[in-house]
Amino acid sequence: MSFLNLCEKRRSVREYADKKVTKADLLNILEAGRLAPSAVNYQPWKFYVVEKDEAISALHKAYPREWFLKVRQCIVICADTAAAWTRKSDSKNHAEIDASIAIDHMTLEAADSGIGTCWICNFDPQLCREALALTENQIPVAILSLGYPKDETVWSTPKKRKSLDEVVEWI
Amino acid sequence: MSFLNLCEKRRSVREYADKKVTKADLLNILEAGRLAPSAVNYQPWKFYVVEKDEAISALHKAYPREWFLKVRQCIVICADTAAAWTRKSDSKNHAEIDASIAIDHMTLEAADSGIGTCWICNFDPQLCREALALTENQIPVAILSLGYPKDETVWSTPKKRKSLDEVVEWI
Repeated sequence: MSFLNLCEKRRSVREYADKKVTKADLLNILEAGRLAPSAVNYQPWKFYVVEKDEAISALHKAYPREWFLKVRQCIVICADTAAAWTRKSDSKNHAEIDASIAIDHMTLEAADSGIGTCWICNFDPQLCREALALTENQIPVAILSLGYPKDETVWSTPKKRKSLDEVVEWI
Repeated sequence: MSFLNLCEKRRSVREYADKKVTKADLLNILEAGRLAPSAVNYQPWKFYVVEKDEAISALHKAYPREWFLKVRQCIVICADTAAAWTRKSDSKNHAEIDASIAIDHMTLEAADSGIGTCWICNFDPQLCREALALTENQIPVAILSLGYPKDETVWSTPKKRKSLDEVVEWI
C-alpha cells in the first residue's frame, strides 16, 4: 500500500471485535513508535501498554465514555519534559511534539496491520496520571485505544478534510 | 513497502541534489499533511510552501546554518491556537500536537517518494514569523526542508534508537 493510501485508510475506530490484539501486532505498533524521530533524537517518551484488568479499570476512570469502557487494550503515550530538548531562544520544550510523532507512527502502523485505534485526548489528565503513577515530568499526551475493527467496512468510510487550497499557501 | 520499512527508511536528509522537487511530488506531500488527523478534526494548521527567491532568503535568516543556506524549497507548518481544540479540564490547547501529526505525515510521504526532509526545530521563531508575516495566533512548529538526496545511500545508514525495553512498560 502506498503511504498516501495508508493515510486515507487510517481513521478513528471505536468499535472493536471481541478478540485481543496479538503480542506480535502490539510489538509492531510499539516498534513504529520507537523508530519515530524526535528533537535532537532525545526520544523523551514512554509507552505504557495497559491491558491488565486492574490497570485498564483505573484508566477507564480517566475517560468514562460508554464505548471506551469496553476497550481492553490501550497504549498511553507519555512525554517527559525533563528528558526532552528545549529550544534556547524561547525555552520551547519539545516533549509533546516528539510524543505526538511517536503516536502518529503507531496509529499508522496499526492501520497498516488492520488494527483500529482511537487517539483520545479528551481524557482527565489527573486521573490518567494516577492510573499510571506518573512522575511530575511526565505528560500523558494520548490514550490510544486498540482493537481489530468490529466492522471492516469502517476502513472505507469517507474522510472529511479541508481542501488543499484552504490550508496551503505558496510563497 | 510496509509501513515499518518506511519508518526505517525515513531519516533527516540535509544534502540535496541540484534539482527542484516537482510540483506533483510537493502536492503528494501536502496531501499527506492534509489527510492527517487532529483533535475534533479541527485541522488547525497552515502549510507554507516557501520557494520563491525572496521568501526563501528571508527564511534562511531564521536558521542560517551552512547546509540550510543551500536549501531552495521548504514547507513551514504553522499551528493556529485560535483554530484548535482546547481541553476543558486543563485548558490544554492541541494546536501544536495537531500540527506535529501533519508534519510527521509529510516526512513519511516524502520518504515514500524518495524525497529527503529535515524537520528543523532549532530556528529563530521570531525571524520565521517575520519571514512569513504570521498572525499572533500562528505558531511555526517546524521548517521542513525538502529535496532529492544528493547521495541515495543516505537511506540505508543505521538509525540510533533506545531499545523497546527502555521505552515500554506493560501494566
